[in-house]
Amino acid sequence: MKSKFSKNRFTQLAAFTVALTIAGTAYAQMMKPEDAIKTRKAGYAFMAWNMGKIKSQVEAPQTYKKDDVLKAAQAIAAINNSGMGALYLPGTDKDVNGEKTRVKPELFTDKEGVAKVAKAFSEAANNLVVAAESGNIDTVKTQFGQVGEQCKACHDKYRKE
Amino acid sequence: MKSKFSKNRFTQLAAFTVALTIAGTAYAQMMKPEDAIKTRKAGYAFMAWNMGKIKSQVEAPQTYKKDDVLKAAQAIAAINNSGMGALYLPGTDKDVNGEKTRVKPELFTDKEGVAKVAKAFSEAANNLVVAAESGNIDTVKTQFGQVGEQCKACHDKYRKE
Repeated sequence: MKSKFSKNRFTQLAAFTVALTIAGTAYAQMMKPEDAIKTRKAGYAFMAWNMGKIKSQVEAPQTYKKDDVLKAAQAIAAINNSGMGALYLPGTDKDVNGEKTRVKPELFTDKEGVAKVAKAFSEAANNLVVAAESGNIDTVKTQFGQVGEQCKACHDKYRKE
Repeated sequence: MKSKFSKNRFTQLAAFTVALTIAGTAYAQMMKPEDAIKTRKAGYAFMAWNMGKIKSQVEAPQTYKKDDVLKAAQAIAAINNSGMGALYLPGTDKDVNGEKTRVKPELFTDKEGVAKVAKAFSEAANNLVVAAESGNIDTVKTQFGQVGEQCKACHDKYRKE
């Protein structure tokens, strides 16, 4: 009797686990390709705005505000850290339902190259937060340059003109 | 002679400071209204994506991953902390050059009400990061509810249907 109960219990638990896993996976999968493109473009657009704020301050040191640059750097790093890779769903290598993308097909095949630029960008962006925390504008300027280089490295390889 | 030099020097410095301040202000002002609308919508879209990730996990605890929820919460808070208020430029209270906005005109006039919802949302979002750091899904769920309520409070008051 105990054994039978355990088996039923096991079956129930297994079914429950499967159901929940499907629910979780379903969330990622139920995103429409056009929404994935729109969302990743939104992330980059918001990063670019914050890059612009930092750029204007390192180019005009008189306008430098530590807290302003720190918050901009934190937004860039946090957006990138939140797993944008999940937004490159299959089928999002081209315009979908009017949502345009400039991504090159290579981004979906060159796993090694993509991992490399993604890692380099993440490091640069997280280091920009550290630089911004220091409050030293020269440190910020140097690290800002590093982030800019990593933006460009990825654009050159995986973004169309 | 010394006095004259000092005066010239002062005049030069003053002119330089004015030039730099204009450069800094110019950056904010040179943003086109349609770009301001596009950028704030990008920020909210990216927040919404991360809210969705947290929602799916608190609703299916089996899928809960502390690190995933933490990074999502950090993105939401950092985007909000980066000063989205600056994107509500004069003239962005309506669609501009094809860039649509659902903002109500009240957002540009009800300074007190806006400050109140902005403060409440910021507190809720920053507390969500703290909750996510705890790794306790019940704490996350409660605080996620708080953030959702603050999203809704602002939408109800300042966003058109």
